[in-house]
Amino acid sequence: MDELTGYRGEVLQALKKFAVKVGDIIKIATDGDVFEGTLMPRYELADDKHIVIKLKNGYNVGIRTSPNIKIERVGVGTIPAFVPPPLPKERPGLPEVAVISTGGTIASRVDYRTGAVHPAISASDLYSVVPELSEIAKVRAEVLFSLYSENIQAKHWTKMAETTASYIRGGVNGVVICHGTDTMAYTSAALSFALQNLPVPVVLVGSQRSSDRPSSDAAMNLINAVVAAGNAPLAEVVIGMHESPSDTATLLHRGTKVRKCHTSRRDAFRSINVGPLARIEAGKITMLTENYTRRDSERKLALKPRFNEKVALIKFHPLFDQELIEWHLNNGYKGVILEGTGLGHVRKHLLPSIKKSIRNGVIVCMTSQCLWGRVNMNVYDVGRDLQKIGVVPLEDMLPETALVKTAWVLAQTGNVEEARKLLLTNMVGEFSSRTLYEGW
Amino acid sequence: MDELTGYRGEVLQALKKFAVKVGDIIKIATDGDVFEGTLMPRYELADDKHIVIKLKNGYNVGIRTSPNIKIERVGVGTIPAFVPPPLPKERPGLPEVAVISTGGTIASRVDYRTGAVHPAISASDLYSVVPELSEIAKVRAEVLFSLYSENIQAKHWTKMAETTASYIRGGVNGVVICHGTDTMAYTSAALSFALQNLPVPVVLVGSQRSSDRPSSDAAMNLINAVVAAGNAPLAEVVIGMHESPSDTATLLHRGTKVRKCHTSRRDAFRSINVGPLARIEAGKITMLTENYTRRDSERKLALKPRFNEKVALIKFHPLFDQELIEWHLNNGYKGVILEGTGLGHVRKHLLPSIKKSIRNGVIVCMTSQCLWGRVNMNVYDVGRDLQKIGVVPLEDMLPETALVKTAWVLAQTGNVEEARKLLLTNMVGEFSSRTLYEGW
Repeated sequence: MDELTGYRGEVLQALKKFAVKVGDIIKIATDGDVFEGTLMPRYELADDKHIVIKLKNGYNVGIRTSPNIKIERVGVGTIPAFVPPPLPKERPGLPEVAVISTGGTIASRVDYRTGAVHPAISASDLYSVVPELSEIAKVRAEVLFSLYSENIQAKHWTKMAETTASYIRGGVNGVVICHGTDTMAYTSAALSFALQNLPVPVVLVGSQRSSDRPSSDAAMNLINAVVAAGNAPLAEVVIGMHESPSDTATLLHRGTKVRKCHTSRRDAFRSINVGPLARIEAGKITMLTENYTRRDSERKLALKPRFNEKVALIKFHPLFDQELIEWHLNNGYKGVILEGTGLGHVRKHLLPSIKKSIRNGVIVCMTSQCLWGRVNMNVYDVGRDLQKIGVVPLEDMLPETALVKTAWVLAQTGNVEEARKLLLTNMVGEFSSRTLYEGW
Repeated sequence: MDELTGYRGEVLQALKKFAVKVGDIIKIATDGDVFEGTLMPRYELADDKHIVIKLKNGYNVGIRTSPNIKIERVGVGTIPAFVPPPLPKERPGLPEVAVISTGGTIASRVDYRTGAVHPAISASDLYSVVPELSEIAKVRAEVLFSLYSENIQAKHWTKMAETTASYIRGGVNGVVICHGTDTMAYTSAALSFALQNLPVPVVLVGSQRSSDRPSSDAAMNLINAVVAAGNAPLAEVVIGMHESPSDTATLLHRGTKVRKCHTSRRDAFRSINVGPLARIEAGKITMLTENYTRRDSERKLALKPRFNEKVALIKFHPLFDQELIEWHLNNGYKGVILEGTGLGHVRKHLLPSIKKSIRNGVIVCMTSQCLWGRVNMNVYDVGRDLQKIGVVPLEDMLPETALVKTAWVLAQTGNVEEARKLLLTNMVGEFSSRTLYEGW
């Protein structure tokens, strides 16, 4: 930890000027008030105006800095240590659940309660912060990464798949992966393909509000994710997040059919073109469909954790420049996912570049930027022409899932025909049936 | 018209073999049945299995081809001519509405009813096919283009804006633009910026099902668009499309806040982050908000129809290659719209390329691929860092609208600071207020 972790701007200048550091006992005089306490670190959401100290009574307060602020060190600093309570006695008969932490808002939960810097979750942290867990499962916790999810890349998917597989092979009843929400749906698609033939559920969970806010969704999401991993009758990769803005229920969404559809709402995740798989309320799991893969501890997991990163996602629009298609060809790309308009269209002028790419061994697939509905390239001439030159129509697959699946397919085979075949095979529910899903 | 318009595959081969052409009176013998009638052209959705003839009683029938089919020409062909009925007498006191056709499914409506090839709409076609229109408005119809909308480019936006402006300056009470649905929302955004200070409404309308299908939405959409253009109390660019899958009502969506969100449903268009502006049912317009610009025939239109096409829309994802950012810089791009994750994030490794672009005069803006919600780049470090290097956070503006607005702004000014200011100014409702919109 830095000496002044999390401070920035004018408040950082003030702390530096008075040569204090996190953990010091300090006296702050500002605008007639005097405060004394331990200087605390700050975390995400920190502004550049407030100094946070822990008063003797244990409360943290934020003191606004001012030009005439005076700070004095009155005690030798020790960074407040977090002493986890003893692990609760494990109850016999509870399911065993691995909780793998990769970072994101949900994994920073412990910090604020304790004042100590815990970038991620250990088993004892989990039990101390969410004591309900000890009633639900025997938790095996592991910190794998501490990454905001916009920084997650294919190599992290590989590592997550491998770690998850090793817990499953070790006999856990389910796996929970704590993950930032930004790219969680990309990861859920990646793990869906990397962890074939799952015997137990893998539940990705995150939080949209950090735990320093009264509206945090972290605790409920985590509890319900552990409930699902330990007990749900399914064996798929799913995302478990809020059903509504209130702390009522968690929905489980199929990992290949889900998308973050709101920047900040707690119920930001939505199943697209299918309904959610299950609902969890007050510890009770209700399956919402018959169409899911059943849990079966005898099933042998097939781990296929590699991805080929030379796959592009290209959103077509009226200003789109066809040279970009050729750039990808010239830069060694092996796959291109087009996010076309409507039923799966692009400007007819792009056809020569697309044709050239395909002739040179690039797999080009079509999805729709509408997100809901299904690509149908038999209706209009441009669709038929695109199919004729070899564009692969990916039905109702999400563009993001198509990107991830293509990267996965191209790591399984270098043969274009085989890759096409795999792309058009419904492997883990990435295609849904033509039956109209009314719930969009 | 080609001699065998619309026929393909094996049925085309059969027609060629027997040397008949559209308009010929032919006798078809197949599998024991004999049919006689005029060979008709075929249109979109045509399969490669059926020959369509018009029987003497006026009905069209489709006859399935077979290996042993025999076709004989028994009469000299004349292509069935479409004779529009006389224009209805114009009623005094009706509003005057310009109907500008640019192509798309809605503009192919006339074809099937008459059997003749009319690629687009003339005033008399309109009245003959949708006779209700003569009760609603004095229609001034014009065929501007005949384009599927995936082929619409910035130059077409310019032409549409100029044509619309000339009708408005000529005194019409409103303008309807028939347009393919695929890129209609890009065009509605473009016209929103190009037609500043509108005195009357401009209503874009399309159809999701062509008129050869019983479920076509073309007629209701067109009628309600003309109702809105002639009578709605607003003066904005809007899209008017089905509220639900049934022919009940049309919703008017603000041109900068709307998106095609389903590939095929009739209610595919949705207002994002705001509610729709109005609802039209059985000729009655109900405003759904107070927040709109009022119709005012005294207001002087300001036509600004130019766009700078060197603007890119880049969707960030875990496999995204930062070299793509530099490619745009090196290829003369002046604007880049990032579709970031969540609150407006990209992988931290992209920052150097983005910084270099901005230093070289590229405007880089942030939107969210969530689509719903608002970019907030003050919450996490990466957001703050992106703002520090000059990325413009575009609040709750849709990525597609951001693309179009930036292209428009960069045609108004070459000055980066001025462009930034314009981008952050709410000009035509492209930003909505922070008040939580619950209706997502």
